[in-house]
Amino acid sequence: MNNHDILLLYQYSGPLATLYYLDEIIYQTRSKYQRVIIAKLRYFGKALILDDLIQSTEFDEYIYHEALVHPAMTLHPSPRRVLILGGGEGATLREVLKHNTVEKAVMVDIDEVVVEVSREYLPEWHQGAFDDKRAEVVIMDGFEYVKQAANSGAKFDVIIMDLTDPYGSEIAAHLYNTNAFKLLKSVLDKNGVLVTQAGCSSLFPEEFMKVYRAASHVFRHVYEYVAWVPSFAYMNSFIIASDKLDALSISEETIDKRLSERGVETKYFNGKRYLAMYWLSLYNKFI
Amino acid sequence: MNNHDILLLYQYSGPLATLYYLDEIIYQTRSKYQRVIIAKLRYFGKALILDDLIQSTEFDEYIYHEALVHPAMTLHPSPRRVLILGGGEGATLREVLKHNTVEKAVMVDIDEVVVEVSREYLPEWHQGAFDDKRAEVVIMDGFEYVKQAANSGAKFDVIIMDLTDPYGSEIAAHLYNTNAFKLLKSVLDKNGVLVTQAGCSSLFPEEFMKVYRAASHVFRHVYEYVAWVPSFAYMNSFIIASDKLDALSISEETIDKRLSERGVETKYFNGKRYLAMYWLSLYNKFI
Amino acid sequence: MNNHDILLLYQYSGPLATLYYLDEIIYQTRSKYQRVIIAKLRYFGKALILDDLIQSTEFDEYIYHEALVHPAMTLHPSPRRVLILGGGEGATLREVLKHNTVEKAVMVDIDEVVVEVSREYLPEWHQGAFDDKRAEVVIMDGFEYVKQAANSGAKFDVIIMDLTDPYGSEIAAHLYNTNAFKLLKSVLDKNGVLVTQAGCSSLFPEEFMKVYRAASHVFRHVYEYVAWVPSFAYMNSFIIASDKLDALSISEETIDKRLSERGVETKYFNGKRYLAMYWLSLYNKFI
Amino acid sequence: MNNHDILLLYQYSGPLATLYYLDEIIYQTRSKYQRVIIAKLRYFGKALILDDLIQSTEFDEYIYHEALVHPAMTLHPSPRRVLILGGGEGATLREVLKHNTVEKAVMVDIDEVVVEVSREYLPEWHQGAFDDKRAEVVIMDGFEYVKQAANSGAKFDVIIMDLTDPYGSEIAAHLYNTNAFKLLKSVLDKNGVLVTQAGCSSLFPEEFMKVYRAASHVFRHVYEYVAWVPSFAYMNSFIIASDKLDALSISEETIDKRLSERGVETKYFNGKRYLAMYWLSLYNKFI
Repeated sequence: MNNHDILLLYQYSGPLATLYYLDEIIYQTRSKYQRVIIAKLRYFGKALILDDLIQSTEFDEYIYHEALVHPAMTLHPSPRRVLILGGGEGATLREVLKHNTVEKAVMVDIDEVVVEVSREYLPEWHQGAFDDKRAEVVIMDGFEYVKQAANSGAKFDVIIMDLTDPYGSEIAAHLYNTNAFKLLKSVLDKNGVLVTQAGCSSLFPEEFMKVYRAASHVFRHVYEYVAWVPSFAYMNSFIIASDKLDALSISEETIDKRLSERGVETKYFNGKRYLAMYWLSLYNKFI
Repeated sequence: MNNHDILLLYQYSGPLATLYYLDEIIYQTRSKYQRVIIAKLRYFGKALILDDLIQSTEFDEYIYHEALVHPAMTLHPSPRRVLILGGGEGATLREVLKHNTVEKAVMVDIDEVVVEVSREYLPEWHQGAFDDKRAEVVIMDGFEYVKQAANSGAKFDVIIMDLTDPYGSEIAAHLYNTNAFKLLKSVLDKNGVLVTQAGCSSLFPEEFMKVYRAASHVFRHVYEYVAWVPSFAYMNSFIIASDKLDALSISEETIDKRLSERGVETKYFNGKRYLAMYWLSLYNKFI
Repeated sequence: MNNHDILLLYQYSGPLATLYYLDEIIYQTRSKYQRVIIAKLRYFGKALILDDLIQSTEFDEYIYHEALVHPAMTLHPSPRRVLILGGGEGATLREVLKHNTVEKAVMVDIDEVVVEVSREYLPEWHQGAFDDKRAEVVIMDGFEYVKQAANSGAKFDVIIMDLTDPYGSEIAAHLYNTNAFKLLKSVLDKNGVLVTQAGCSSLFPEEFMKVYRAASHVFRHVYEYVAWVPSFAYMNSFIIASDKLDALSISEETIDKRLSERGVETKYFNGKRYLAMYWLSLYNKFI
Repeated sequence: MNNHDILLLYQYSGPLATLYYLDEIIYQTRSKYQRVIIAKLRYFGKALILDDLIQSTEFDEYIYHEALVHPAMTLHPSPRRVLILGGGEGATLREVLKHNTVEKAVMVDIDEVVVEVSREYLPEWHQGAFDDKRAEVVIMDGFEYVKQAANSGAKFDVIIMDLTDPYGSEIAAHLYNTNAFKLLKSVLDKNGVLVTQAGCSSLFPEEFMKVYRAASHVFRHVYEYVAWVPSFAYMNSFIIASDKLDALSISEETIDKRLSERGVETKYFNGKRYLAMYWLSLYNKFI
């Protein structure tokens, strides 16, 4: 007669809203910063949910994390020092460390609880990455870390921003403006590449364009690329930026060669998809 | 820009569906029988949720439990032995024990986990009732208990069925049919009164009428009475049945006198409301 | 595999939200004031929906309209002149005209489109009331009408406010404050009775109490009474106010006698329910 | 205080459900086959909705229709005779007719009402395509038409299936099985290409694979390609099949050259995207 579910509602105020079925709550707590839930979603499996927002799911985290990490990593000819802002699940770190060129990967997440919970409940995500000798996990505000790094003269080859959506909050506005990109650039090697997840340009074009323009003010080569992440219910946008390296000047074959030389095995990413992710963007001017 | 919530959806297949805002999950586990959640609902406060169905909330459990217990208890001139089927939260037991005529109140719930979780997380509900010397908590299937009690010749003055909704499942169909009422009658004193919660007669008239008719086949005086429980989003129906005592032959004054004599203090129930709950039923023939 | 529905969502920002199934859109238009839809809801049948808010449904409009009209009409010993503010469906007018004491019933609705659409699509509601010789339908702002009536010295025995919910908008705040009640009192006979629908006191206590207090500042005898309207998914509150007539000083028998003498036939309302509707209010102090 | 919306709910029984905001109902009727609504959705603009399923929206119908039509049309070196099954909006026909190689385009839709409503309310979709001399619109069951065409020995260079989702119904199962593809093949030129929309392979892999396998039993070269259609809230899958032409053996440059030679102007489709749509498929074995 009746039915009943626990639903996770996403983006009620956006162009459309999405409902997920929360079949099990495996663990939940409240950190200093947010409500942290490890849940089992119908179909998508285990998921990390922060402040009622799905961060990634067992079903397709590999698409999101490979798409976030490998375009920047393979665009760079030899990434040795990598900085990750956010990425508490450890899967971004996992993908970075697959590149045997990497000597040091610093992951800075503000919320220790997320890191600890991920370490315990999401082994499929981090797969031991936290314990890799090349990894350093720092618990502090990412931009605070960058300020200190800038003072100490540190430089990174690749910077990966795996933070909250660049929409809808004062905090977000602060993370993705021109000043933020200038600060990040100050710790990026002159041949370096920066990449950030950037929400969904089709559904939130104005918000996306703000970030795109801010990056364009600070970097010479700026592109969007996209990846369909089923559990996000949208085509996820990424913005990649560099002063030296033009993301579209590299061939499918070079990408595949770099993956192979560095011993990187992937489930989603390869040279063809590298190109396809740029080509399907609705924003890049070259198309 | 966006918003997001965890929602509890109720009765998607019914005439209308209701969405609750699940602001906090205080505790959750899975028993042998069901998913057990103690949550904080927006507005309604702490709540017990079994298999994604709200059982009662901090905001208005007093209405539900007083409306379930006191009509039958005050209709009976001197209830000494009371049987509660279900009622794991302990609040039905709490209301029963308010009547100082009660010598023995047996509460039979199939799920030990619900009782233990309620004991720990819902002190506002049971208020120590589990520890009252007159209370006996039995963990077993309610109907199994009744069969054994029938064999031993036990009799109760009042039987209170605080079980799952009488709709939508094979189990429910089994609990509320003629045979079930006959079995219950076999352990009811000849002056006894039986009461059961019965879902919502306005929204599920066919299902309600099945229970009503089954009770009418077994008992002489059968009535519906109703109570609006805000967090249920409907007028809750109850069915009260007795062979000897006619629920409508008693006055407002007698109800109030019995409450007073027995030392019963209530927040919702009184003589006027006793009558009003019958008078607002859409099913009783006398109106 | 999939399913899909058109849903009407109500009170997403309230303590709970309700979803209705919109099975057919029979007619829709946009008036100067609002979006007007005649739809077929699953279970509840035909419904008038203004700005996405259900006004009343075929299934239970009789409960709402009888509960709105007859308490005030039967409390008054001889209502001859009645003023209805709002009530575009014509069902409030229909109930008023059932009292053969009525000589004149003026219904003032701001939206001609609602009245015309109701006349055509909701014959079960108005049942020809618009064409009764005692009825006068005025298309204008209700309070503007009252100001003019006050200037002309008109007086009414009963005033019925069948307007939008007293919550959530500037307009509503304006309709239900002390000044509004003072203005209405200026056209109410000194033995007169005023009644207004008042949302739901259990779910919106602060908003309800604002209206209750405003009425209490202006009238001597002010009470809440309530009626469960299934399609509203809540217990609807009404506020009845009078300087002379105390709504609780009248007996069940007098109510029934007045209904009978005046030739009023009802499906829901009677003397017992008159009392029960007051007795189940959670706000009236006498309980 | 409150808010309220009319929502269109999609795929409540799937892995996730989507809610759209139905801001205006422009026109609605019921045909012999289905409930037909022209509505204005928030953000996505005007939309055709059949049996509560969004068919296409003003915002992004160009993506869907270009992605459906041009891969098959450009894969074929010289498509002269084209058969469209379904496609009542007229936009598939519009895209087909852009190719100046086309001499005859037959569109067969079972529901005359959809075609007539689209002609009147969706001029942005068909853009006069129905009146093109090369177009023939036939109102009948598509497979019935194919049977008759087979008997008459007709052959088409390209067949485009723009029908309901290949999921969830007996009808759908019937349209996409091996027998259906064999029948279609009987009216396809030996150098011909068939394409069908195919739901979403990521969210409904089993259902998708049924169609994919059925096509693979009948055709030699069968591939999935994908396009993100924002208003569908998923990556839409297409299946392209041919005995002679291998969709992956054609270059970006050839695609662009054919578009240019045939005078085809597009907003979404080009040679790069032709490839990208295959490369992002999660099912094609070559990746």
